[in-house]
Amino acid sequence: MNFLEERIVKDGIVKEGNVLKVDSFLNHQMDIDLFNQMGEEFKKRFEGKNINKIVTIEASGIGIACVVAQHFGVPVVFAKKSKSINIEGDMYIAEVESFTHKCKNQVIVSKKFLNEDDHVLVIDDFLANGCALQGLISIINQAGGTVEGIGIAIEKGFQVGGNIIRNLGYQLESLAIVEDMDAKTGKITFREQ
Amino acid sequence: MNFLEERIVKDGIVKEGNVLKVDSFLNHQMDIDLFNQMGEEFKKRFEGKNINKIVTIEASGIGIACVVAQHFGVPVVFAKKSKSINIEGDMYIAEVESFTHKCKNQVIVSKKFLNEDDHVLVIDDFLANGCALQGLISIINQAGGTVEGIGIAIEKGFQVGGNIIRNLGYQLESLAIVEDMDAKTGKITFREQ
Repeated sequence: MNFLEERIVKDGIVKEGNVLKVDSFLNHQMDIDLFNQMGEEFKKRFEGKNINKIVTIEASGIGIACVVAQHFGVPVVFAKKSKSINIEGDMYIAEVESFTHKCKNQVIVSKKFLNEDDHVLVIDDFLANGCALQGLISIINQAGGTVEGIGIAIEKGFQVGGNIIRNLGYQLESLAIVEDMDAKTGKITFREQ
Repeated sequence: MNFLEERIVKDGIVKEGNVLKVDSFLNHQMDIDLFNQMGEEFKKRFEGKNINKIVTIEASGIGIACVVAQHFGVPVVFAKKSKSINIEGDMYIAEVESFTHKCKNQVIVSKKFLNEDDHVLVIDDFLANGCALQGLISIINQAGGTVEGIGIAIEKGFQVGGNIIRNLGYQLESLAIVEDMDAKTGKITFREQ
């Protein structure tokens, strides 16, 4: 097990309905030392890639993205999830439909902050069905930018998001891929990497 | 002018209605080197304070808080703005009413992540009327924790939030306090500190 898998086993809580709660260190309370370890690991996994920007989505991706960005020496742009009065002017908008929740969401980035010169590393905390991620990729493509890679903290390997992204040919690096969780025993099985 | 005031003059845009757009470096695209400078400065201003946790509010406070946290060696907890399905169990909730927008918002933190042993530095990007900040202080008080200080990137000195917080006796450190902005000329006047 790597450092993140160990932490998930130690502090993650498995709930009914394939819910994995990691709010004590990842997405409500945030362990910044852990985020720095993730930054080091992503830097290794994306070695040789010419990355000049990190893109993430609000809210829980932002903290990880900002700490990881220090390991690449690049700025972060976070996408907003619905039209906000603070974003004005031209925007890239991706309309994404959740196939589980049957709801539509907008993923929005100002045109000022993405263009054809951008070589982007996408960072997020979770990957399950991957709708938000599909929206981010759509926006980077709209801008003419290049998706150099996608770094995820925890992927739910039993949901389709990761497969879709790998099928599309993107370098997707998930630090922990959960294959199976049992709410009764609390046991979590990770995919061998 | 300090480093943040200089950056605001260089890249901030003044709009009608007392709007200051700093989305190119603070709250949409984020300059992580700048956030580290802010971290150094907050560390100086809160020297001698016994701080073991940083609390902020989603979404645009999170990035600053996570980078600043490295200068204090503490974890970050971010409050959510409305009841989310990802937060379960006991929560601290503050109901805050905006006196400008006439709307109510909930500020929410899980009881697991704040308690009477916590000595908290509150971090946020903007302070105007201070409703969100009042909610954060309420929650820390509910938990029996101590507000050791409040660090803000940009305060709108011509709105009431900063005065209220200083009247209450809190150490409020705003790295840039805008006294006046002129949308026609673009001129920004800062309070001498």
